[in-house]
Amino acid sequence: MLVLVTYDVNTTSNTGQRRLRQVSKICQNVGQRVQNSVFECVVDAAQLAQLKLKLLEVIDVHQDSLRFYQLGNNYKNKVEHVGAKASIDLEGPLIL
Amino acid sequence: MLVLVTYDVNTTSNTGQRRLRQVSKICQNVGQRVQNSVFECVVDAAQLAQLKLKLLEVIDVHQDSLRFYQLGNNYKNKVEHVGAKASIDLEGPLIL
Repeated sequence: MLVLVTYDVNTTSNTGQRRLRQVSKICQNVGQRVQNSVFECVVDAAQLAQLKLKLLEVIDVHQDSLRFYQLGNNYKNKVEHVGAKASIDLEGPLIL
Repeated sequence: MLVLVTYDVNTTSNTGQRRLRQVSKICQNVGQRVQNSVFECVVDAAQLAQLKLKLLEVIDVHQDSLRFYQLGNNYKNKVEHVGAKASIDLEGPLIL
């Protein structure tokens, strides 16, 4: 299924900037960055649970915000992009 | 239906900052800001078409990026929030 992860991390401090880098890194391991703070992740339920656990370990719940949107398996006609930086097809063939 | 609007606007110029303010304002008219660049909008198909038109009028398609995610009518169990700044229930009763 496609899960959208969006986040706001308070980066007014050095520790905040560190958290932002950690959140980005964790999301990059399972998903595709489509905007600065938006990742699309094609995961199963176990991978999603794992992803949430990892993110919860690094964020500060009093300052940062994470949102997860489950778009299911038939998501291709639910997502529309306009403008710069269109994302790649996560499940499409790899053309070299 | 719930439509998630996420955006990246290139704010390295004054015109970019103006576009960002315009995009925020248009989204605020039909939705709830849940993160810095993420709005949740409960709209019907006509309102969504109108929203897209308005946003397309203000963004620079070569520099800015807009994404629309359709979460349907039964979206409450598809959205999860962790951390700071939880959103309000857009369709819930207004308690004064």
